[in-house]
Amino acid sequence: MPLNSFGHILTLTTFGESHGPAIGCVIDGFPPGFEITAEEIRAELMRRATGQSRWTSQRKEAEDVQILSGMFEGKTTGTPIALLIHNTDARSKDYTKIAEQFRPGHADYTYHHKYGIRDYRGGGRSSARETAMRVAAGALARKFLKQRLGVEITGWLAQLGELSCDENFDSSVIDSNPFFCPDADRVADLEEYMKALWKSGDSVGALVRARATGVPVGLGSPVYAKLDGDLAAAMMSINATKGVEIGAGFKSVAHKGTEHRDEITPDGFLSNHAGGVLGGISTGQPVEVSVVFKPTSSLRLPGRTVDTNGEPVEIITTGRHDPCVGIRAIPIVEAMLALVIMDHWLLHRAQCGDVEAQEPRIPG
Amino acid sequence: MPLNSFGHILTLTTFGESHGPAIGCVIDGFPPGFEITAEEIRAELMRRATGQSRWTSQRKEAEDVQILSGMFEGKTTGTPIALLIHNTDARSKDYTKIAEQFRPGHADYTYHHKYGIRDYRGGGRSSARETAMRVAAGALARKFLKQRLGVEITGWLAQLGELSCDENFDSSVIDSNPFFCPDADRVADLEEYMKALWKSGDSVGALVRARATGVPVGLGSPVYAKLDGDLAAAMMSINATKGVEIGAGFKSVAHKGTEHRDEITPDGFLSNHAGGVLGGISTGQPVEVSVVFKPTSSLRLPGRTVDTNGEPVEIITTGRHDPCVGIRAIPIVEAMLALVIMDHWLLHRAQCGDVEAQEPRIPG
Amino acid sequence: MPLNSFGHILTLTTFGESHGPAIGCVIDGFPPGFEITAEEIRAELMRRATGQSRWTSQRKEAEDVQILSGMFEGKTTGTPIALLIHNTDARSKDYTKIAEQFRPGHADYTYHHKYGIRDYRGGGRSSARETAMRVAAGALARKFLKQRLGVEITGWLAQLGELSCDENFDSSVIDSNPFFCPDADRVADLEEYMKALWKSGDSVGALVRARATGVPVGLGSPVYAKLDGDLAAAMMSINATKGVEIGAGFKSVAHKGTEHRDEITPDGFLSNHAGGVLGGISTGQPVEVSVVFKPTSSLRLPGRTVDTNGEPVEIITTGRHDPCVGIRAIPIVEAMLALVIMDHWLLHRAQCGDVEAQEPRIPG
Amino acid sequence: MPLNSFGHILTLTTFGESHGPAIGCVIDGFPPGFEITAEEIRAELMRRATGQSRWTSQRKEAEDVQILSGMFEGKTTGTPIALLIHNTDARSKDYTKIAEQFRPGHADYTYHHKYGIRDYRGGGRSSARETAMRVAAGALARKFLKQRLGVEITGWLAQLGELSCDENFDSSVIDSNPFFCPDADRVADLEEYMKALWKSGDSVGALVRARATGVPVGLGSPVYAKLDGDLAAAMMSINATKGVEIGAGFKSVAHKGTEHRDEITPDGFLSNHAGGVLGGISTGQPVEVSVVFKPTSSLRLPGRTVDTNGEPVEIITTGRHDPCVGIRAIPIVEAMLALVIMDHWLLHRAQCGDVEAQEPRIPG
Repeated sequence: MPLNSFGHILTLTTFGESHGPAIGCVIDGFPPGFEITAEEIRAELMRRATGQSRWTSQRKEAEDVQILSGMFEGKTTGTPIALLIHNTDARSKDYTKIAEQFRPGHADYTYHHKYGIRDYRGGGRSSARETAMRVAAGALARKFLKQRLGVEITGWLAQLGELSCDENFDSSVIDSNPFFCPDADRVADLEEYMKALWKSGDSVGALVRARATGVPVGLGSPVYAKLDGDLAAAMMSINATKGVEIGAGFKSVAHKGTEHRDEITPDGFLSNHAGGVLGGISTGQPVEVSVVFKPTSSLRLPGRTVDTNGEPVEIITTGRHDPCVGIRAIPIVEAMLALVIMDHWLLHRAQCGDVEAQEPRIPG
Repeated sequence: MPLNSFGHILTLTTFGESHGPAIGCVIDGFPPGFEITAEEIRAELMRRATGQSRWTSQRKEAEDVQILSGMFEGKTTGTPIALLIHNTDARSKDYTKIAEQFRPGHADYTYHHKYGIRDYRGGGRSSARETAMRVAAGALARKFLKQRLGVEITGWLAQLGELSCDENFDSSVIDSNPFFCPDADRVADLEEYMKALWKSGDSVGALVRARATGVPVGLGSPVYAKLDGDLAAAMMSINATKGVEIGAGFKSVAHKGTEHRDEITPDGFLSNHAGGVLGGISTGQPVEVSVVFKPTSSLRLPGRTVDTNGEPVEIITTGRHDPCVGIRAIPIVEAMLALVIMDHWLLHRAQCGDVEAQEPRIPG
Repeated sequence: MPLNSFGHILTLTTFGESHGPAIGCVIDGFPPGFEITAEEIRAELMRRATGQSRWTSQRKEAEDVQILSGMFEGKTTGTPIALLIHNTDARSKDYTKIAEQFRPGHADYTYHHKYGIRDYRGGGRSSARETAMRVAAGALARKFLKQRLGVEITGWLAQLGELSCDENFDSSVIDSNPFFCPDADRVADLEEYMKALWKSGDSVGALVRARATGVPVGLGSPVYAKLDGDLAAAMMSINATKGVEIGAGFKSVAHKGTEHRDEITPDGFLSNHAGGVLGGISTGQPVEVSVVFKPTSSLRLPGRTVDTNGEPVEIITTGRHDPCVGIRAIPIVEAMLALVIMDHWLLHRAQCGDVEAQEPRIPG
Repeated sequence: MPLNSFGHILTLTTFGESHGPAIGCVIDGFPPGFEITAEEIRAELMRRATGQSRWTSQRKEAEDVQILSGMFEGKTTGTPIALLIHNTDARSKDYTKIAEQFRPGHADYTYHHKYGIRDYRGGGRSSARETAMRVAAGALARKFLKQRLGVEITGWLAQLGELSCDENFDSSVIDSNPFFCPDADRVADLEEYMKALWKSGDSVGALVRARATGVPVGLGSPVYAKLDGDLAAAMMSINATKGVEIGAGFKSVAHKGTEHRDEITPDGFLSNHAGGVLGGISTGQPVEVSVVFKPTSSLRLPGRTVDTNGEPVEIITTGRHDPCVGIRAIPIVEAMLALVIMDHWLLHRAQCGDVEAQEPRIPG
């Protein structure tokens, strides 16, 4: 498996650096005959894009995605789909200093030692710029899942710093504010918080949650291709992630078995601590995943580090950065959730395509 | 990639059901010329084994592991190493009822729908019995890492139900009690807690942590073969896991960037919120991972479920079960940590085997 | 992908050495609900087995294959199927000399240099003993393909040394003689030839062909998962193979385009130089593959080689060997053909499972 | 593994259709710190390019390859290297008729049935245009192998139709004629032959051979990652290939064991029927592979086929085509040989990087 590829049947291979000429991806194994346009993909990309609100980096990329292959007369052909976005607003001169300093909390030091060479401009390959291609590929998976299976995927901000959001939500609220916050009453607080954060020069972490409804029972495979195992890999491969939970997640530590086990009735499961996955296979309940993002490490507040000569230096990171990368991560989490579910649907069809529908089927 | 295989270069393929004739694995890509005995592997297996204390399932497996291939005159030969353990203490009659009922919190319902057929005896393939082979394979990786690189891997119980352990520890304490608790003062409490739990018939979750020290800088690859991404997949593939963290994990949500970024001095990093991984690549600091295990779902306390006719039934799970699966999971977490690190060390050697050692090297 | 694994969805992982305690395999991704018995598998194994005629090695293995996992109440469950055969008639003392000498034409020298250690007994991992597991796994694929799709797979001896067989055959002849020769009139010649060969102490090469009929149109994928590309890999991984052809194969060099292109009429293709594959995808015509096997290198006739000190020595290989390994290779070629086709059928179902049947369909 | 990817550690993923906007590839796992320019890659591409002589298709592509990622300041960085070539001389109108007819000997019929949709322009994904990316990627592997290991790779035309070339050659001859013929005395015959062929409107097959010298002993792995197994897959994935041989290949059928086994002396092997591979692992002798290419199926001479309504039609293929695709296949065969060897060198370094050099080492 290429190191920069992901998936079993539906695979995503990405390439590109933050300040290189372009970023791109190859989506392989996608079913033929599926209609999608570059505009639809771009619409998803704009949800992740920087420069959209004052709370994100001011880098303004056109995100003019081109479809280079795998489509004919508006439909996928079953051959690899290559997508390309030229980088247009990279300002490499902001990064000259970084060539000789290791930014704390960044991959500068690790790339330096691993490869002995490093494209320091904007973080090179370790930049979150790569995630645009996940969102682009996710746009295909998402539309496919919705059309064929009725799967709906929704991600939202659950917590920003100490501010948590009420998660009993009407999903229309989420897209009505730049924080993907599902709690209309919280938006003003978040603005206030971000304003103060921006002023202070500091950054903050975030907790993101996503849910897929309508996922059929039976997706996932024992034991190293479990649906939740693949979701964990998918999420932990996103930049700045430090943790992943399925369902009740870390709350499970203090759960009793009688509380945690999701009892079953003919009318449905009585709870969903499992997050829609049992034994690595989907139950038909909503698949629920939580992901934590660390605060941005690029800060204009000085910090201690060493330079490439090993000398201690004080570093100030200029360049354009998000004070909370977790906000823009929401469409990325959704995209990865869509890709994993669609991949497992194809994989399930491969191995179990002629298993007859079983009774009883509990409502999801 | 086979569905029941894991790893890039060093791969583990496992097979076997809880009550089948045997469980086994194939370890492929292991370097030649390495000495290990079945006894050494068995010693690791006994740390995970049931029947060792009153706090774990009373199933007593001999864990008489046989090496079927890949070794000659006491050394690995570079060809696939197959390990086999015959199941000797399976009591399938305990499970007759389960053939027609879906145990809540178990994979019964999902396997039933996915495959249309289900080996219900002891959970079949979804049983934690499979994890014995991870520990067996991990024994090889662990010894290899220690001998060649000086890597030490330690796992421990961080929390059991509401009881947390003091984690400023002397690692010798961990193996001196049946809970893998690093906090000698906590052992009596844990015993008390487990006694009460046992009496009540309920079960509880646990939080496990593991650390690898001595990991060289540079292991891991962008972007879908990140060290932390592979660790997340490894951990989330263990039975009963609901969450994985690297370093500061979910605490990062409330961190400020100035607090979270691990500043660097010529004498070393000033903190390790990163958990030893930046940009998916090891920093040389200890690699730290936390894993949460849900409480056992098999309880003698009645619960609601449906049978295979869709009728509501009250279920009582007999059979022999751990009241807290998280305790025995500790050697499994250690094993997966060892396997992932060794695999990435081989992968790094493949791509970057002639990169010269870079300066400066910050102490880990 | 593990180095000792093969396939995309339906994967085969094998392990074991010629004189180790056992050989075995893990078949992963096999659909659930399929009935097969150890006896059926053993029946296929006996077709490949040594000791069956005076023209093959006299090693007599019981080939008592055990099914260790992945089956329940006589049916596959969708989990990995492990098969095991204990080696019972290994005579390692025959091989003591070989520990210090490199047999020409064998893997002794290459394993020695690659791994720095070598299980010399019976060739270790490089022995054709491994191929028994291919036949075992192939037994499942073959029965599956026949039951579900009506695919029939037939292999035969096309040429032994200079003796070619008439290939306009009645397939019942093939299994009626120990040479898998489809030409009843040739059997006496082959016996004569082999008798003389045996007497001389020499060995000879063979040409094997196999055909699969009833293969649906559409199996295979561009461009590195082509049906013929995977067949070539499958065949060239068999011991002693030196070449693989699809359809007209090397005869194509002198073909004109007007001759070679298989013209199409509503009643069918007018020829099958393509061997049933165009653009890496099956046409619905018979899939035809030819494989050449070199003569056995283990000979009692002395040959020149060097020992492990680099000194020139004259080598005589004792032990029990086939004078023509190509004969017994026929069931192996059939097995690999079955595995590749079934794997591609599953893969096709994954990506194109809802493509509607297209018109026109030319008879195969 | 993505369907359009190849390799273990060094992986090549290609995308693009004949008449799409561009073709491209992603090379992953390539070691860092390696210098190469787009011009060097383009130089290899021009060897394969059409429009270079009157004996190849007159399509004239600029082959202006762009490096989109994975390089910094002229060196590889260890991250994925994406290469892109825009298609500039596609004449899709030549192919309008083909939308409704299945060209015999082409993938039209198989793509139509597999995918239910087909980019018919220039053959779409099944066009040999894809192979340009193999040559581009091969340029990197080839230079790497030469610089680091002294490996030299040479391919040549062994036979064109009935005309065979004398293969005792001075390699400088090969690049001095448009046929890659190593036999200066044959060039005039080949010109005459091709002239007559061109006039007749027909096409012809070709036999190509390639050799790698300087390959270290020890590359390749049992049993499904054999060097020769991977070479067979690599070669059979090239368009129009119908067969692959290693070393003596199909001649082995009539070989006696005493003749075929390559005897060993302290001064070297006495022959190389093995083609440099024993037990799937390189011997240190030249690695030798032969590949046959069928005659072009696109002919202006009428042939029988059916249209998409199933009606019989007479087809004449216009468009620009090579009368012998085998000629231009030579750089492609070289590229695949380079990629497979380099991949196995990296894989060997991963597993056996610390095996000490063994004695005795026989000259290659």
